[in-house]
Parts: sequence; C-alpha cells; structure tokens
Amino acid sequence: MNYAMIIYILSWVLKIEGIAMLLPAGCALLYREGTAGTLIVVAALSILIGQLAGMRKPKQTAFYAREGFVTVAGCWVVLSLIGALPFYLTGRIPSYLDALFEIVSGFTTTGSSILGEVESLGKGLLFWRSFSHWIGGMGVLVLVLTVLPLGGGYNMMIMKAESPGPDVSKMVPRVADTAKELYRIYFVLTVIMVLSYLLSGMPLYDSLCIGFGTAGTGGFAIRNNGMADYSMLSQFLITVFMILFGVNFNVFYLLQKRNWRAALRCEEARAYLLIVLLTTIFLGISVFLQIGGGLLYSFHHAFFTVGSLITTTGFSTLNFGLWTQPAQMVLLFLMLTGACAGSTGGGFKVSRLLILIKEMGKELHLIIHPQAIRTIRLEGKRIEHSVVRSVNCYMILYVFIFILSVFLISFDGEDFLTNFSAVAATFNNIGPGLGHVDPMGNFGFYSDPSKLILIFDMLAGRLEILPMLILFSPKTWRKTN
Amino acid sequence: MNYAMIIYILSWVLKIEGIAMLLPAGCALLYREGTAGTLIVVAALSILIGQLAGMRKPKQTAFYAREGFVTVAGCWVVLSLIGALPFYLTGRIPSYLDALFEIVSGFTTTGSSILGEVESLGKGLLFWRSFSHWIGGMGVLVLVLTVLPLGGGYNMMIMKAESPGPDVSKMVPRVADTAKELYRIYFVLTVIMVLSYLLSGMPLYDSLCIGFGTAGTGGFAIRNNGMADYSMLSQFLITVFMILFGVNFNVFYLLQKRNWRAALRCEEARAYLLIVLLTTIFLGISVFLQIGGGLLYSFHHAFFTVGSLITTTGFSTLNFGLWTQPAQMVLLFLMLTGACAGSTGGGFKVSRLLILIKEMGKELHLIIHPQAIRTIRLEGKRIEHSVVRSVNCYMILYVFIFILSVFLISFDGEDFLTNFSAVAATFNNIGPGLGHVDPMGNFGFYSDPSKLILIFDMLAGRLEILPMLILFSPKTWRKTN
Repeated sequence: MNYAMIIYILSWVLKIEGIAMLLPAGCALLYREGTAGTLIVVAALSILIGQLAGMRKPKQTAFYAREGFVTVAGCWVVLSLIGALPFYLTGRIPSYLDALFEIVSGFTTTGSSILGEVESLGKGLLFWRSFSHWIGGMGVLVLVLTVLPLGGGYNMMIMKAESPGPDVSKMVPRVADTAKELYRIYFVLTVIMVLSYLLSGMPLYDSLCIGFGTAGTGGFAIRNNGMADYSMLSQFLITVFMILFGVNFNVFYLLQKRNWRAALRCEEARAYLLIVLLTTIFLGISVFLQIGGGLLYSFHHAFFTVGSLITTTGFSTLNFGLWTQPAQMVLLFLMLTGACAGSTGGGFKVSRLLILIKEMGKELHLIIHPQAIRTIRLEGKRIEHSVVRSVNCYMILYVFIFILSVFLISFDGEDFLTNFSAVAATFNNIGPGLGHVDPMGNFGFYSDPSKLILIFDMLAGRLEILPMLILFSPKTWRKTN
Repeated sequence: MNYAMIIYILSWVLKIEGIAMLLPAGCALLYREGTAGTLIVVAALSILIGQLAGMRKPKQTAFYAREGFVTVAGCWVVLSLIGALPFYLTGRIPSYLDALFEIVSGFTTTGSSILGEVESLGKGLLFWRSFSHWIGGMGVLVLVLTVLPLGGGYNMMIMKAESPGPDVSKMVPRVADTAKELYRIYFVLTVIMVLSYLLSGMPLYDSLCIGFGTAGTGGFAIRNNGMADYSMLSQFLITVFMILFGVNFNVFYLLQKRNWRAALRCEEARAYLLIVLLTTIFLGISVFLQIGGGLLYSFHHAFFTVGSLITTTGFSTLNFGLWTQPAQMVLLFLMLTGACAGSTGGGFKVSRLLILIKEMGKELHLIIHPQAIRTIRLEGKRIEHSVVRSVNCYMILYVFIFILSVFLISFDGEDFLTNFSAVAATFNNIGPGLGHVDPMGNFGFYSDPSKLILIFDMLAGRLEILPMLILFSPKTWRKTN
C-alpha cells in the first residue's frame, strides 16, 4: 500500500475542505451569526493540517486499483469527520453522531436529515449543509485531480473509484483534463441555474442553497416547509434542473462540442427521460384521482416528485408518503433506479439497468436459439464482458447490503415500510423515504447503531459499495498482499 | 416446434393426473362423501382424453431446449386447469379462479390458500389438495419420464426445465434412470415419514395428508388450527422431515450407496443446515425474550418455523406474524433463500446463493489482486461460466418479476408488508406471508387480477421462471424461428 501517496492526496482534500468552509463562514459573518467563529477555526485547522501533511511530495507514485479504492473511501470518511465539526462544536446539533449523519447525508447528496426543523441552525450552517451537496455531487477527489500537480496512472484509479456508473468514459484522453471538463460543465450549469432561480423570484440566499442541492442532487431544504414556500414557476425550474443534473454529463460535453447527433443518440439519457415521462403520466393521473386539485396541480407535483426521486435529490413539495399504494410503489421503483451514470445523481443507475435488461434478453434469446452469437451493446459500443460481470457483482452486493441493513435497523422496532424505505433512501442517496421517514418525518428517532448503519449505507451508496468494502476488508490491510 | 411430441407428453400427464385423482376419490367413497362422484368423473375424463391424445406415437422425436420449456410450462398449466375442476364442480369453492389458485398453490407446493377455514371441504377434497403437493414436489414430468416409452434426447431437456436448481446433476448416466432413482428415494422417504407420524400418535388420514405436504414441502393444513392440534413429538418429527426433504436428493442417493464421505462433503447441504442452525438459535432467543413460555417452548417453535420457511413448506404451529421486527426480517430472509437445489423445496436455492457469494468473493479478490486467476468451485467441481451467467440471469429476472408483481397487486390497496410478503410467499412457494397474509390470514381478499398475478408467480417460482416466460413470449411462437 502506497501510504505516502494516500496521505498526500488526503492532504489536498483537507485543504480544499478548509477553503470550501470559508464560504459558509463568510455567509455567517454577513448575517452576523455566532457560528462564524467556529466555522473559521475549523476551516483554518483543516487547511493547516492539510498543509503540514502535504509538505512532502511522494517519490513513489506507483498506484493500483486497491489504492484507488482505499484513497477514495478514506478521503470521504475524513472529509465527513471534519465536516461534522461545525454542527457539533457550535452546539446546534448536540450529538456528534447526529452531526456526522447530517454531513455524510450532505456530502453523499442524500439529504436525509435527523432534524425536525432546520431553520434554527442559522444561515451559516445551513449554507455549509447545502454546499456539501455541491462538493459531494461531482466528487471531491475529482476536484483534487483538477489541481493535483502529479503525474502517473493514479488519477484513473481514483476517477474509477469515485465516479458513479458501471464504466468510466473519458471525455478527453487525459484524466485530469476530463476532471477539469466535468467541473467546468458543472460550474457553468450551476451558474445558469442560480440565475434562472433568481429571475423566478427566489431570494439570492435560497437560490444559492437550493441550487447547490439541485446541482449535487442532494435534498437538504433550508426552510421548515421544504420547497412548498416557493412559487410554482420556481418549483418547475427546480424540477427541470434536477432532471438535467441527472443526465450523463457526456451529453452536455457533446452538446457543447455541437455534436448534436451524438448527444441525441445517448441511449442512457433517452431511457432516463422515457422513465421520467411515463412515471410522471402515471403519477399525475394517480394524484389527480386521489387528491384532485386539477390536472395542472397534479401533474406539476407529480413531475416535481419524479424529478426529485429519480435523480435521488429528495426535495419535496408535498408529502408523497400519503399517496396511494401503487403510487408509492412507483416512487420506490424510482428510488431504486436512480439517474444516469456520469451524473451527480445516485441510485442503481439507468445504464446498469439497461445492461441487465440486455443481458437478460441475450440469455433468453440463447435459450430459444442456442447457436446464436449475440453481444451486448450500449451507446453503440460493445459492452466488455468484464463490465457485465462487474454489474452483476454490483447487483449482488447491492441486494446483500440492502437486506442486511434492513435487518440490522429492524431492531429499533419500526415498521417494514419505514425500514425498507429508510435503507432505500440512504443507500440510494435520496433523502426522504416512506412511512415514518416520509417528507414530513426525519431520521432522528433511529438509535445510534442504526444511524451508523445508515451512515455506512449513504457512503457505500455514493461510492458504489466497492471502496467502502475494500476499506473495511481485513484482506486489504494484510502485509503479505 | 415439435407439437406431436408435446401433445404426446401432455397425454401422459393427463393419464397420470386422472389416475392420481382416483386416490382422493377412493378416500371420499370411504368417508361416504358426496364429492366422490365428481372426483371419479373428472378422473375418468382426464384419463380418457389422455388416452385419445396419446394414440399416435410421434415419429419425429427431435426436441430442443425451447420445446422442453414449453412442454413443462404447458403441462403444468393444463394439470392445474383440470386439477381445479373438482373444487369448482362440487361447489365447495364457488369461483373457478379461486379453485385454480388453490390447486396451483397445491401443485407448486406453495400452500397459500384462499380459504378462511378448510375443514368444510371434506376429507376427499382435502386429500386431493394435499396429494397435489406430493405430485408437484418431485415434478409430474419427472414422473412421466420414468414411464414414457420413448428414446431420444428430449428427457434431459424436460429434466432441466422442471427440476429446481442452477444445474441438473444426473445421479446415473441415463436420465430416465435418474428420474426413477429420484422417485424411488422420494417414495421410500415418504413411507418412513408416514410410519413415524403414525407412531407419534397422529391419525392415519392426518399422517398421509400432512406427510404429502411435508414431502412436497407444500403447506396445506387439513385442520383449521393448522399444526397446533398435534403433539410436540409429532411437530418435532414434522420439522425433521421438512428439513430432510429440503436436502439435495443427491445426498440421499450417496447415503444409500454407502458413500458416506461424499454425502457428508456436500457443500450445499452443509450450508443449508448451518443456516437452519443459526437462524433457529436467533429465533429461539427472540421468541423466548418476546413471548416467554420457557426455552423448550421457544426453541421448539423456532425450529419448526425455520424448517417450515427455509424449505418453503409453510406449515405453522403459531402465528409468527406477531413476532418482533428483526425476527420477521429473518423469516423473510429464510423465505427468500429457500432450500437446496435437487430437493422438493422452493425459493432461490442455497446453491445459487453460494454461487453468488463465491462470484462476489472472486470479483473482490480480483480488485485487490488484478493478476490472480480464480475459478468458482461448488461441491469440488468447477462451476462452468454458463452456469454462473444463468444464475445471474435468474437473479435479475427474479428481482424484476418480484418488483413488478408487488407493484401490480398494490392496486388492491393492501399495505407494503402484506404485498411484499404475499409475493415472496407465492413466488417462493412458501404459503403464508406476513401482515394480512400471515398464518392466521389467507389470500381470499385479493382481487381476481391480483390472484392471477399470484398464480403466475407460483408457477414461475416452481418452474424457476424461464419455462413460464418462454411459454408467454411471442418470440417462441413465431413461425420463422
């Protein structure tokens, strides 16, 4: 294990976290809140430790997949441990574990909260909470890659371990350039979004914070009423941008290169938009029949909820926990599916679903025509056998961890729908679930052990399981390996 | 498609069903019940049609996997359509769909019932209901293979399509001989079991009917109180035999050949018994802490419930729907896992689980040691890549059908636990679920469309999905293929 490299990369993560924390600190100063001091101290400490740890450039840059996974998982854990400090040290969240739950939920763009009401946190801490969505959305290590002054093959390993989806497609030949390209698109889209929120009449502070949540597809609200306070136009814009940030960023890259045809051909994005369309129609009709309020009202909220859940953002305009059983099953399906690979959205990913469906089709075809030769293609490219295998492996791990988590948190005695959807909501980085963790509820009632399980699930969900498993596997740390 | 062969095999199924129905007819005569006449008429008709349809031996015996699947699925559908007639024609179950649900539940060894109380069916019909478990347990087509006077490669295709598990292992070189061997073991074990039930003080009629259920791992009771009426000794014997019938029959074959070492080395059976042991301990403690009643009481009922659910039998001595949440999660896990391949038990099968776990271990190992070469072995034999692929495909189909079924039956408005466990219980051929379909409930309240979904799930579960999918796939029936 190349510890020197891991520590060096970690030092950069600390520096970036410290710098990032200066933004909410400034916000707290602006609003003359007492939390400013704590935010500045934690930020300064983070930068200082990062500076000290990063003094020595590693000589050996040899770096393998194992190191990539350990680095990414380790960095996310440290990032969270430090990110939780402002909540805890200011006393606004008295339990450190609760503070950790809250910031892990932020960085992993989950948006599940242990808080019954959020406004008492103050503007500065709320800003940090929402900003963590933006940092975690595209990935903090992808950000590190854009600035890290090192050569070597390590960056591909890190990119692979942190970016969601079954396979990493490089937009441009060099990984560091791909990372820069991703962040450029991310930044530009965010600016356009915040401006359009402002134009729709949202206050600047709200536009920024809700914008961070939309971009990272996290779901922290900054008002106790969630999104219900904003105008229908604002809500509509939020829906559109949530869905855009759930699209594979490759599409935006192609659009920007004016390669319209290739952008429109993107199979995953098309499947994703088709799911959005069909489920919106289904839920619109369902809400109309159940609650009434007119077709516009029903379809508006159905569209918002679909956008919010398939992108795993988790914003809510109304309490979908009260919808009919079939509607709730569709919501569970959206939660499990998730958005596109190569986006900021979480979940199982549409491309994995497509690969599974195609694999199934191939196997069934082979039974009827045993002599046939068939390859699985996605986006016009042949899917390598190793990718299919890793998707299968991912699915197995996914189901196992899911079942184990539901079992472990069931000791708290909550009902099945609550536990099942709590795991679905955290493991897929969505935010709210159904039952007692529906949009009007929160995760505060779970016991500490259950919160730890859900924290693990959020991290495992964001990093797509493998890094977390490898970090905690004894085999990884055995000397002889 | 070789229709001549399919019809010929079907004719044998009809003849066997007719002969089998003479047994309950005799029972009804013995108890002087009015249902005897109906049973005899349906039996005679079934034999007559079978005789007429089987007049012409097919000349062409060419038979492929596709034909195998279609034959098996088609035979099971016809078997059920006719098997439901006695319930319907006697008026004891006034709706034909309900009668169909009941007999499909019987043949697939599910044991889910739409009846609130069973004793009013009468001894004859109850005998037919329980006997259908015994017929479906080892497979009606496997029985046909033992008597069918035809050569050719068709029998392996049928064996593959009807026998549960990821791969068919022939005990002896010829398939027809393997089928005979399987039925010989099945018959001998059944006789030993019925005798020991009798010795424990159970009446003859009960010993036979409960014995059919135990052997086929179906779960129809013949008393309104389920198994609660029998002595603890009888219940203990039922537990032991349920677990025995969930063991891979290969083990019994090896034992009978006095190949003790090979029998004891059977990996699947050992994993299966280990799961039984661990979950019994867990549930025993859980019941003791929740309900009390002494350690013996707790462990007795925990053992019974574990045996009943892992083998997907579905008998119950008490209402486990009232157990704690963690206990119910363990029960759901047992329901999903199921028994060994090559047994009469249903579910996902322990061997599939082992293959998945080993595949996962291999993939994780490959990440840490990218250069390593590792093969997956089960029972000392290398698992072919095609088997791993088919297990993956099975798992994907399993999850998809599961989710779709829960969605479709959710339109009835039942709660999530009820719907989820109703699908788990029927798809895995268990019987009772949790919530409103727990051991004290029944499936009668579901609407007709939902019952049709659950009937499909029972058949798909028993035949391991593929035959049913291929039967209903338009591709199968296209002329050009």
